[in-house]
Amino acid sequence: MIKVAIAGARGRMGQEAVQAIQKTTDIEIVAVLDYKHDGLYLDQEQVNTHEVGWPIYTSFDQLVAAKKPDVLLDLTTPDAVFTNMHDAIKQGVRPVVGTSGLQIEEIKQLTDFAKEQEIGGIIAPNFSIGAVLMMKFSAMAARFLEDIEIIELHHDQKVDAPSGTAMKTVEMITDVRKAHQQGHPDEEEKLKGARGADIEGMKIHSVRLPGLLAHQEVLLGGEGELLTLRHDSFNRGSFMSGVLMSIRQVMMQKELIYGLENIIE
Amino acid sequence: MIKVAIAGARGRMGQEAVQAIQKTTDIEIVAVLDYKHDGLYLDQEQVNTHEVGWPIYTSFDQLVAAKKPDVLLDLTTPDAVFTNMHDAIKQGVRPVVGTSGLQIEEIKQLTDFAKEQEIGGIIAPNFSIGAVLMMKFSAMAARFLEDIEIIELHHDQKVDAPSGTAMKTVEMITDVRKAHQQGHPDEEEKLKGARGADIEGMKIHSVRLPGLLAHQEVLLGGEGELLTLRHDSFNRGSFMSGVLMSIRQVMMQKELIYGLENIIE
Amino acid sequence: MIKVAIAGARGRMGQEAVQAIQKTTDIEIVAVLDYKHDGLYLDQEQVNTHEVGWPIYTSFDQLVAAKKPDVLLDLTTPDAVFTNMHDAIKQGVRPVVGTSGLQIEEIKQLTDFAKEQEIGGIIAPNFSIGAVLMMKFSAMAARFLEDIEIIELHHDQKVDAPSGTAMKTVEMITDVRKAHQQGHPDEEEKLKGARGADIEGMKIHSVRLPGLLAHQEVLLGGEGELLTLRHDSFNRGSFMSGVLMSIRQVMMQKELIYGLENIIE
Amino acid sequence: MIKVAIAGARGRMGQEAVQAIQKTTDIEIVAVLDYKHDGLYLDQEQVNTHEVGWPIYTSFDQLVAAKKPDVLLDLTTPDAVFTNMHDAIKQGVRPVVGTSGLQIEEIKQLTDFAKEQEIGGIIAPNFSIGAVLMMKFSAMAARFLEDIEIIELHHDQKVDAPSGTAMKTVEMITDVRKAHQQGHPDEEEKLKGARGADIEGMKIHSVRLPGLLAHQEVLLGGEGELLTLRHDSFNRGSFMSGVLMSIRQVMMQKELIYGLENIIE
Repeated sequence: MIKVAIAGARGRMGQEAVQAIQKTTDIEIVAVLDYKHDGLYLDQEQVNTHEVGWPIYTSFDQLVAAKKPDVLLDLTTPDAVFTNMHDAIKQGVRPVVGTSGLQIEEIKQLTDFAKEQEIGGIIAPNFSIGAVLMMKFSAMAARFLEDIEIIELHHDQKVDAPSGTAMKTVEMITDVRKAHQQGHPDEEEKLKGARGADIEGMKIHSVRLPGLLAHQEVLLGGEGELLTLRHDSFNRGSFMSGVLMSIRQVMMQKELIYGLENIIE
Repeated sequence: MIKVAIAGARGRMGQEAVQAIQKTTDIEIVAVLDYKHDGLYLDQEQVNTHEVGWPIYTSFDQLVAAKKPDVLLDLTTPDAVFTNMHDAIKQGVRPVVGTSGLQIEEIKQLTDFAKEQEIGGIIAPNFSIGAVLMMKFSAMAARFLEDIEIIELHHDQKVDAPSGTAMKTVEMITDVRKAHQQGHPDEEEKLKGARGADIEGMKIHSVRLPGLLAHQEVLLGGEGELLTLRHDSFNRGSFMSGVLMSIRQVMMQKELIYGLENIIE
Repeated sequence: MIKVAIAGARGRMGQEAVQAIQKTTDIEIVAVLDYKHDGLYLDQEQVNTHEVGWPIYTSFDQLVAAKKPDVLLDLTTPDAVFTNMHDAIKQGVRPVVGTSGLQIEEIKQLTDFAKEQEIGGIIAPNFSIGAVLMMKFSAMAARFLEDIEIIELHHDQKVDAPSGTAMKTVEMITDVRKAHQQGHPDEEEKLKGARGADIEGMKIHSVRLPGLLAHQEVLLGGEGELLTLRHDSFNRGSFMSGVLMSIRQVMMQKELIYGLENIIE
Repeated sequence: MIKVAIAGARGRMGQEAVQAIQKTTDIEIVAVLDYKHDGLYLDQEQVNTHEVGWPIYTSFDQLVAAKKPDVLLDLTTPDAVFTNMHDAIKQGVRPVVGTSGLQIEEIKQLTDFAKEQEIGGIIAPNFSIGAVLMMKFSAMAARFLEDIEIIELHHDQKVDAPSGTAMKTVEMITDVRKAHQQGHPDEEEKLKGARGADIEGMKIHSVRLPGLLAHQEVLLGGEGELLTLRHDSFNRGSFMSGVLMSIRQVMMQKELIYGLENIIE
């Protein structure tokens, strides 16, 4: 049984994580780390004094002393994350963290510290396994099929284009693919913007329509063939399988991993 | 049995039409109209003197006098088309023509003349029934689902973007749909071109990749739902069903029809 | 302003309808028909005594006398629907009903009665405009592209296969398409079921996977081309546009319409 | 410059390979191995006596003695392949072979022999890189998203269902995925075959329509998400990139590789 302490258990992601963990048979919640309510209990989303649910601690040290968790699952805001992770590593508790908000320098410090302490940890900017696989496969395939266009599709309440996932995909592809001009050399845009955004020759197209949720297609073309890698994210539940996988995987790690793509072989 | 004379029988489209007609049991080729080889014979793509195949005429009047065709199928170049159509209508032969090269004024003249002569005819800028249905359905659906984006995908040897089919689709949609801004009002393109080309609020995205042939998707979004109309054109064979349908349909028409969408109810 | 009375306003569909109508500027709710709470008020989903919200009636006659609605929107269970519709037609109130539970004989009776009373009405087994368009277009296209396969995809909690929408689509297609054997005459299923279910030569494939919501693709193949009509239903919101459209359309009808496909031209 | 001898150069695949190699700058054809025409020359698809093109040998030993090729590209029929590969390995010429016709025992013998001779070789049942990537990614993803359905789509002249590629995909997935029942436990097929063929819980659906070429989709569903891996094969050209990659890769191998998925990391 893997013993988990959760920080951020009262938030939206936290509540879903609590439910997802309760459905497993190999992971148990032993305590909750919070900035208030010390000494009380959390039962699902309700805080109470009746010893129903999990004990709440505001001090991580006391939490560790009392409950000896194997893993700290941190679903709080970026500003709390660095300190929480540092404390966890120091105490020999493996951190599993879902945030894209850490600075490169902070990640480096934590990585060095985890190595020093010989303890595993996972930072996941994206907990959706399907999305991570799509990105990883895109980068793998880009070495063989070098002409690539990305179509990402989201609901029309999204302000920025392209999406963060599309930009991360591009980044992973450009790490392995040489920049080169795509399309016909004399290509002519009769309507401006028709050919999309361009990064090192790759084209990115952002579709925004009411009804849509979050979707992405990576199209890789070669002589006589097309490979399409598509991910549809229908709801937040898609993050929970990544959370559970990370909790299980971190027990076998000896260092700090950044990005689920690095534990998916 | 519908008797057909073919102009342009030695061209690529013409050869395929000859083959397609020969596979039917209700349409027969009775003669070939050409600018040379008068008095010779066309057997598949070979011209010969042995009376094998169909007789070639350079004079349409002599062709009509000798062979009395019901339909003239014209697959020649735009410059010959107007005269051929005019001659056909005058002689009471129904023209079926595949070209997008006629001027609006020419189409009007021919339409008036056909009405005067009480004879049917069909001009089809696109003979692919699937493509025509996609366009027609897009326009029909646009009255109910008004937020629309078009993704058209072609091989990377195509120079212009967007494609002619995409532009025709847009035209048919804008005839019935009020212009309006789509997407979030504060939408921000972090990479220029990401949101595609804009026509009256509709977005068009052109994908160009090696391997691709000719494809188009029209996405219509509404609250909680998405309707996608997609057409894939894999080879020129896709035009032949439209040619045969037009030959059969023109027998029942009393006027000149422009665009297959108008005989598809 | 179109005045609407709602039956079933406290149910899930009813609550969404109330919200959707409140966002319009041309439709207003004037009363609620319920089997209890007579004389009270409904404010959103709360029943109260404070005259906040809409008055609740258990008698349709009293409701009509007091509020003179143009339309009765009925989102109740199948057993209440027939009586409600009959009462509405009798009182000159146009019924808009979302149910697939009426018997053919009942529909016929109501149709005759509406004609007699010269009043419009709409029965919609499916209020999703996108789904209805997909079905309607499938039937239209089937006259030209006669080789058809349907792939319907749903979450893995769905018990029956194929889905009701797939069966309705098949029914609409078989009304216009001649039965014929599809695929190679000597086709061989090396694994039983690979070629799906067969109705008059058409094949239907049911996909069930966790994560999926409700999706359907109709594939129509022709020489060298493929037409794909796809509908994705992401949430119940997709029904509301159909509800609003029906309320507006019914004002212009003089008879009882069965199926939204008949008011979408 | 990699020196290649080609067996089967006059066949359809062979002709395309000849053209593809001629477009490269790092691979050259030095001779042709054939069962007839010894001493003549092959110029594109024409055999001639004028020393135009590449010399034809009927003896592999004489070919090697005269031309010292690095690689033997064998695109002949299954019955010639085993002997050709054996001869090549014996002579220190790396074999690159596209066939799915070898027996397991034969592959084993050749593998042992190549190891003994310390020489690389590649046997590719499928030379399409896109198809191989789709299969490889499916197997990789199946470890994380265990609910899987495969839809393979082909032209209606194909006799067998499911396709060989679908069966190979299934085989690669079942190697890493535990068999388990998918869908609702009480699932009910109202029409027989709707849920497709079943292998260890995975469902396979075979679509056959005129117009289609060769396509496959692997759908992997998880809580709230869907990952789709799709490959479209539009023409035989799709095999040529795999042929060229294999010729380049085999130079760096020290053993016999079976399946391109094993040189794609």
